[in-house]
Amino acid sequence: MLYVKTPEDVLALIKEEFSPLGQGETVSLSAAMGRILAEDIAAGEYVPNFDRSTVDGFAVRARDTFGCTDAIPAILPLQQTVQMGQGADFPLNAEACVAVPTGGAVPKGADSVVMLEYTEDYGDGTIGISRPVAPGENMIFRGDDVFPGKVILQKGRVLSSADIGALAAIGRVRVPVVKKLTVGVISTGDELVPPEVQPCPGQIRDVNSPMLEAMLTAFGCHVINYGIVTDDEALLTQKVRQAAAECDAVLLSGGSSVGVKDAACRIIESMGRLLLHGIAIKPGKPTILGKAGPKPLVGLPGHPVAAYFITKLFVLPLLGRLSGRDMTAYTVTAKVTQSISANHGRAQYHCCRLTPRDGEVWAEPIRGKSGLITTLAGADGYFCIDRDCEGLPKNAEIQVTVCSGE
Amino acid sequence: MLYVKTPEDVLALIKEEFSPLGQGETVSLSAAMGRILAEDIAAGEYVPNFDRSTVDGFAVRARDTFGCTDAIPAILPLQQTVQMGQGADFPLNAEACVAVPTGGAVPKGADSVVMLEYTEDYGDGTIGISRPVAPGENMIFRGDDVFPGKVILQKGRVLSSADIGALAAIGRVRVPVVKKLTVGVISTGDELVPPEVQPCPGQIRDVNSPMLEAMLTAFGCHVINYGIVTDDEALLTQKVRQAAAECDAVLLSGGSSVGVKDAACRIIESMGRLLLHGIAIKPGKPTILGKAGPKPLVGLPGHPVAAYFITKLFVLPLLGRLSGRDMTAYTVTAKVTQSISANHGRAQYHCCRLTPRDGEVWAEPIRGKSGLITTLAGADGYFCIDRDCEGLPKNAEIQVTVCSGE
Repeated sequence: MLYVKTPEDVLALIKEEFSPLGQGETVSLSAAMGRILAEDIAAGEYVPNFDRSTVDGFAVRARDTFGCTDAIPAILPLQQTVQMGQGADFPLNAEACVAVPTGGAVPKGADSVVMLEYTEDYGDGTIGISRPVAPGENMIFRGDDVFPGKVILQKGRVLSSADIGALAAIGRVRVPVVKKLTVGVISTGDELVPPEVQPCPGQIRDVNSPMLEAMLTAFGCHVINYGIVTDDEALLTQKVRQAAAECDAVLLSGGSSVGVKDAACRIIESMGRLLLHGIAIKPGKPTILGKAGPKPLVGLPGHPVAAYFITKLFVLPLLGRLSGRDMTAYTVTAKVTQSISANHGRAQYHCCRLTPRDGEVWAEPIRGKSGLITTLAGADGYFCIDRDCEGLPKNAEIQVTVCSGE
Repeated sequence: MLYVKTPEDVLALIKEEFSPLGQGETVSLSAAMGRILAEDIAAGEYVPNFDRSTVDGFAVRARDTFGCTDAIPAILPLQQTVQMGQGADFPLNAEACVAVPTGGAVPKGADSVVMLEYTEDYGDGTIGISRPVAPGENMIFRGDDVFPGKVILQKGRVLSSADIGALAAIGRVRVPVVKKLTVGVISTGDELVPPEVQPCPGQIRDVNSPMLEAMLTAFGCHVINYGIVTDDEALLTQKVRQAAAECDAVLLSGGSSVGVKDAACRIIESMGRLLLHGIAIKPGKPTILGKAGPKPLVGLPGHPVAAYFITKLFVLPLLGRLSGRDMTAYTVTAKVTQSISANHGRAQYHCCRLTPRDGEVWAEPIRGKSGLITTLAGADGYFCIDRDCEGLPKNAEIQVTVCSGE
């Protein structure tokens, strides 16, 4: 029990023992969504790159409109009309105006735009203006949004659709991102059959391989699924070594019998160093973490719910660390629909269904005697009961990590 | 202004005017992550499909252990040893025990399992038991987790990795999902150039096409990007008709000048029916929604921030409606770092950066004069100031929709 650690210690250990691999690649803008930015992105130019009108109207010098009213409009000759998409590389004449569309270029010397609604075209080449504008009104100046050198996105960020828009705006169509990690997944257990096989008595279907493959793929990893290996130490050693050679990280799940657990420890130790054996959380205690060179080797519990939580709580942060990924996450405040007791001494995780009602969110813990899988199916999120907490009363406020669709 | 609607009215209109298309397909388990379930999923079998031990130990009749202690152990002959992955299709003899591994099958007649820790192998074919067990202890019975007919996942759900695990557990390796929607995206504007082109004065890069493509792809749609069409009504009509023929929905963005806005209205009307023209939110008022048969045609504002919000707030729910997708979403409670004023009469949306600090989440509104794109870049989420609200004081509690990575 030498290596049993608290969740906080495990996260600290991960940070200490593992570092970003620092492998980048360049992808096109249309392939960059959801990828991790490998560098800070600074603009190389001005956005917009010209003074721009935000309305349909007439570009003027504001002072030429001061004092005008409906009764006494300012009358300015129409010098020119700027078309959409064309530059306005000419100076505005003294006491004149230039017609500009929304988004159109404003000529030099103009400092504001009068909205069309407050003007009248007299048909004789002059425009009547019935409301004054202030300097700067209804305009965006060159570089108002972005100027060269301005950092618009930071390294480590998972690119969102809005970020893709920002990259398009500054013309960054080749995007530096972190190379996807390749993660190997191995299930072990003489009782396991592939999901498509009807299990005989004594056998169960392998849940962890497809579940982990889905979770890691959604997290942005390449997954190599090595399938099911029987509880044979020589065979398992060979498979883990193969996976460690081919992947950036290896997850070995199962081996719930004592002998196999020991075998997983021995295999990991033989390949490098054992970092921990056991995490003080429920479910999920029998977890092993080791490293072979810079590569993490994780022994996950065979129980699917335990494997699920260990992967969410520790393996994803570990893979995030290897990728230099910003792992900030947020929780939703909810109230529990029923009281829950908890074990002392271990942080205890529960899946729940969420229901918004009357402006509040209610979390219904999903219970199950065996909790093989029904406590996961249809879960909207999960919450933790701290190790020092004896349980939660009905209506207690909790923080739920939403995981529907993840 | 006949057609300007509040956000609530727009969502009601979408529900009223559009229905799920009801087109399903079957995919393999490894392709089902993130897809929308087309049917309720009921189990066809028992999980587990045999009585199972949750510990390494000895299967017994509980009554044979009652009263035993360290000093006076119950001594039972070891009838047999069950191996992992094998059935236990034999009855437990009277006053005997059977060795079982964690997860192993328990023979008929046994009602509990004594943990290895509380036993001693006397080496003469008998096992000493030093602690009594209660009936049901350390066992999962057949069907405890899932039984035939039990609905484990509901139609409309976006499948998560936990759901994939549940499907694997019951052997559903062919999964009925909703067919992906094909959405056409068209940008219009004489001022637009593709993101890879250096704009001349008067021109800007097309932000909306790549942003919408990224957002809709992440939402699970196939996107056909029709690129940029100049402000030519005949050309635009032709392109929108082509897109409507090829796609389930068409998003036309841009056309910020009055003439083009009118053209978008005329085109949509000529193809079917105009449902609304203008939504009372900021940014995003100049939005058009129509339908050609069952297909929605949306005219988005050209301004990227407005196009972003309209798509998040209305287009995704609309596409969700067409897919029969559960659109329940949750917000994160945060406090604003600075006061914000608001317009009367229109719901006002702001992007923000989130920072967890001292157990609270702080939301820093992203401000920008033009807000062309910098108010989107790097945003972690957004929040709304209600139309009846004059603004928020510093430290006010708000509900943030998190959108980093989306």
